[in-house]
Amino acid sequence: MSELFDRHRSMLEGAVRALYARGFWSPFPEVPSEKLYGEGVKVQADAAFAKMLHTDFELPDHPESSRRGAEVSPFGPALGIRYPAADTASLIAAARAASPALAQASPEQRLGLCLEALVRLNRMSFVMAQAVMHTTGQPFAMAFQAGGPHAQDRALEALAMAWEEMMRFPDTAIWQKPQGKAAPLTIEKHWTLVPAGVSLAIGCNTFPTWNSYSGLFASLATGNPVIVKPHPAAILPLALTVRVLRDVLVEAGLPADSVLLAVDAPGGEIAKDLATDPAVRIIDYTGSQGFGDWLRDNARQAQLFTEEAGVNSVVIAGTSDFSGICANLAFSLALYSGQMCTAPQNIYVPEGGIDTDQGRKGPAEVAEAIAAAIDALLADPARAAGVLGAIANPATLDRIAAARNLGHVVRESTPAGEGRTATPLIVQADRRAGEAECFGPVAFVIPCADADAGISEAARIATQKGAITAALYDTDAARIQRAAHAFAAAGVNLSVNLTGNIFVNQSAAFSDFHVTGANPAGNASLTDPAFVATRFRRVMWRRPVPA
Amino acid sequence: MSELFDRHRSMLEGAVRALYARGFWSPFPEVPSEKLYGEGVKVQADAAFAKMLHTDFELPDHPESSRRGAEVSPFGPALGIRYPAADTASLIAAARAASPALAQASPEQRLGLCLEALVRLNRMSFVMAQAVMHTTGQPFAMAFQAGGPHAQDRALEALAMAWEEMMRFPDTAIWQKPQGKAAPLTIEKHWTLVPAGVSLAIGCNTFPTWNSYSGLFASLATGNPVIVKPHPAAILPLALTVRVLRDVLVEAGLPADSVLLAVDAPGGEIAKDLATDPAVRIIDYTGSQGFGDWLRDNARQAQLFTEEAGVNSVVIAGTSDFSGICANLAFSLALYSGQMCTAPQNIYVPEGGIDTDQGRKGPAEVAEAIAAAIDALLADPARAAGVLGAIANPATLDRIAAARNLGHVVRESTPAGEGRTATPLIVQADRRAGEAECFGPVAFVIPCADADAGISEAARIATQKGAITAALYDTDAARIQRAAHAFAAAGVNLSVNLTGNIFVNQSAAFSDFHVTGANPAGNASLTDPAFVATRFRRVMWRRPVPA
Repeated sequence: MSELFDRHRSMLEGAVRALYARGFWSPFPEVPSEKLYGEGVKVQADAAFAKMLHTDFELPDHPESSRRGAEVSPFGPALGIRYPAADTASLIAAARAASPALAQASPEQRLGLCLEALVRLNRMSFVMAQAVMHTTGQPFAMAFQAGGPHAQDRALEALAMAWEEMMRFPDTAIWQKPQGKAAPLTIEKHWTLVPAGVSLAIGCNTFPTWNSYSGLFASLATGNPVIVKPHPAAILPLALTVRVLRDVLVEAGLPADSVLLAVDAPGGEIAKDLATDPAVRIIDYTGSQGFGDWLRDNARQAQLFTEEAGVNSVVIAGTSDFSGICANLAFSLALYSGQMCTAPQNIYVPEGGIDTDQGRKGPAEVAEAIAAAIDALLADPARAAGVLGAIANPATLDRIAAARNLGHVVRESTPAGEGRTATPLIVQADRRAGEAECFGPVAFVIPCADADAGISEAARIATQKGAITAALYDTDAARIQRAAHAFAAAGVNLSVNLTGNIFVNQSAAFSDFHVTGANPAGNASLTDPAFVATRFRRVMWRRPVPA
Repeated sequence: MSELFDRHRSMLEGAVRALYARGFWSPFPEVPSEKLYGEGVKVQADAAFAKMLHTDFELPDHPESSRRGAEVSPFGPALGIRYPAADTASLIAAARAASPALAQASPEQRLGLCLEALVRLNRMSFVMAQAVMHTTGQPFAMAFQAGGPHAQDRALEALAMAWEEMMRFPDTAIWQKPQGKAAPLTIEKHWTLVPAGVSLAIGCNTFPTWNSYSGLFASLATGNPVIVKPHPAAILPLALTVRVLRDVLVEAGLPADSVLLAVDAPGGEIAKDLATDPAVRIIDYTGSQGFGDWLRDNARQAQLFTEEAGVNSVVIAGTSDFSGICANLAFSLALYSGQMCTAPQNIYVPEGGIDTDQGRKGPAEVAEAIAAAIDALLADPARAAGVLGAIANPATLDRIAAARNLGHVVRESTPAGEGRTATPLIVQADRRAGEAECFGPVAFVIPCADADAGISEAARIATQKGAITAALYDTDAARIQRAAHAFAAAGVNLSVNLTGNIFVNQSAAFSDFHVTGANPAGNASLTDPAFVATRFRRVMWRRPVPA
């Protein structure tokens, strides 16, 4: 019945096993190696990307009333790609027209085509890397990993969870109730999985694929047509994704319009119209709390799954590897110029200092040491460019400028390399500086009364303002347990004593539930059962079986 | 660690197996038999109930600033029971104070105490039957079953689902990522289940236990303190439940205030204050769409699980057992005087008539035959009282009076027996009469162009106004499939060709997902994974394991 499902069944089964084991697993190699992805693939991808620039993006049979697109690479050039654009009514009508066939397709058919699309997306990871790099400003290695295999992992994880939920209960049952000495009452029951309705995926500027794939694939697998509304500055990665999905849908005999692209332009956004259309019953949103609040206030007809902003904190209480923690934090702060929802911002250090293998260190010394570690990390310009990438949104530069006034500047932010760039700004400041998110390469070193006070303060901010990550460096086992408890209550995932090649910014599919849903940084988790369970409902029909 | 859990483990395991098998299962006997519940239990229960009347209800250590309670049995007498009442602030403060200990209790501890409470509630099912009967107007047999063992089944089902969700993923894992020839990166991860917050259960007048137990037990099992806000006319069944739970909580070493009773009086309702308190993060609500809308508009800080109103339809397309369907529908309409969320209201009959084993029957003949079957069912006054019970809310009598004017009265509603009573009113009317819910013993027989038109109309109303059940009588296999499809798309559970001792009103725990969540009759289903999955979140802490 579904050849595609059979073809990819073992990958799905592997993903399901990984969900329950929660160890490391991925079918998609994260190393941008031609040995893994094919000889010559890099040059071909560069050429394919170059060929797309300044052309009309082909999306066969997609609703279209005009062409839109004004992407400019944070590294400099305008992309000049013109995407088919249609008004809200046309997109909604197309999605609704696709709904019945998609709903009636079996879970196997839908999973099969989603898995096939992922495999094709994986093969084109080098092209996707270019698309992500030149829309987000991510450095190449991150654009490849986060935009390609890691995003594909997140999609596969969502597919596995959706599959588990859809298959969780039988689709038929015989209900037989004893009636004393009389024949039992026997009822046959049949369940149908009914999709929720049209799904809207609102992408962000910085991680267009990684943050959108979970919702997109979860909705599609459970039978909901998806309108993909990319950030106007980062359309290409999702346009490529939509094209692959539409190709596979058609090959699978299902309507191409099961996945649609909604392109808008700054000043002419259509997200609000789409989000409030009565047919839209699911919205996956990544972005600011401001628009998140707007959606909560206005898109009341839809289920809303959000990842929004937050203030991520680090508490440094003590260490036996001071150089190691400074190097680790330097990388976390510099990576993609702090433009990750998981990047740390507030660094709490006890005002009386901390014990380290290099002696006692006060807040100023810790701030200086982190600044020095950043300098060392970025000393080589080529390496610096490969870590920092570019700044996605010009407003981030304004925030850096404003943050300078919040305390004592320990390390200046400076341009670095091609395009719109900025190295991390380190400011020693009091606790008020850390009250709000300052998205971008800005960190505040904040003295606190003692380590427990820092933990409390970080957990309080997480509870009130949201947080996706927290980090603690400590040698006191009892305090580590207290911190684990405090951050759990605040709904933040905590990393303890990270040094070496693992960073607080990183979240692994199949293992980490990214965002907990338990503080204002987001109301949903990638990808737990709640993320998929309400995307469809079980509806029964039953009838008696004659005795 | 949890003696109670060990004591009831096999019952929980049986419930979990039943969840996945979805056949008939229950550990709680539904027959009000002294052989099953103990010799003399009926007389003892009657005495215990009588002893509670006109006294202060004892709820040791419960917050209390006054005594409230003005329940009047629909069968006549005032109950005169005075419950401890406290203001919103005191109840919220008490719940918050109980939160940390409840959150830190293990899932086994919480499940253990919930299971123990259920077993104790089961033992007191005869007392509960009196309490339910004299607050809801249910006839005794229904009050026993729906108020006792069937409600306990629903609670156990919710506990089993909550247990499955809590146990679904490991609480620790080792994440090991290969690093080529270097030693792998190894991270140990620990997950904590973090409850959502204070939970509010808003009960209804007609099924105070059956409709509230799923949310109450699901929230408590997942670590959320629950404030139980009964309908002011049906406090006693939930007050008894709260007392049992508080007793068991204390015995288990947990705060009694993990479960609280919020008693208000008509005109002095506190549901709005409670529902909008920032600490309240979960609301389970059964009641009107009007207050449902209010909650959606105002209780924005909380997750809302609702069962609201709907218009349930029957389509009669053809039958080989005309007497059987009339008798079956007569019972469905008469049972508890139509005051069930699952009772049918609109009966569609093709205007050209239907084929039956008694010849062709037009809408008027079908209406007359159903009316006659009701007359036969209610001919014996004692039997009539045992089927009809009494009318919970005086407003229902007004609705009956108004419904008389909507068409041709085929069968008059009349008083029957003790208290405030009313037999079913049958009105032949056009389709406009069936557009809105007319809660109570009112049915409209509505001619339609043909059976498919009746199916479409019933499905349309379900989609727009909500519906919890639908029924079809038909002999055409293809049309049955079309109906199954149409009602599935409308999110309504459909019963086909029910005759004999099984009724469209009935919904069985562990098998039927009651309410689908897919139309305006409710946004949640009892008890699917979505009903429990967001009542807690998983929060991690992780740290590297040295190589």
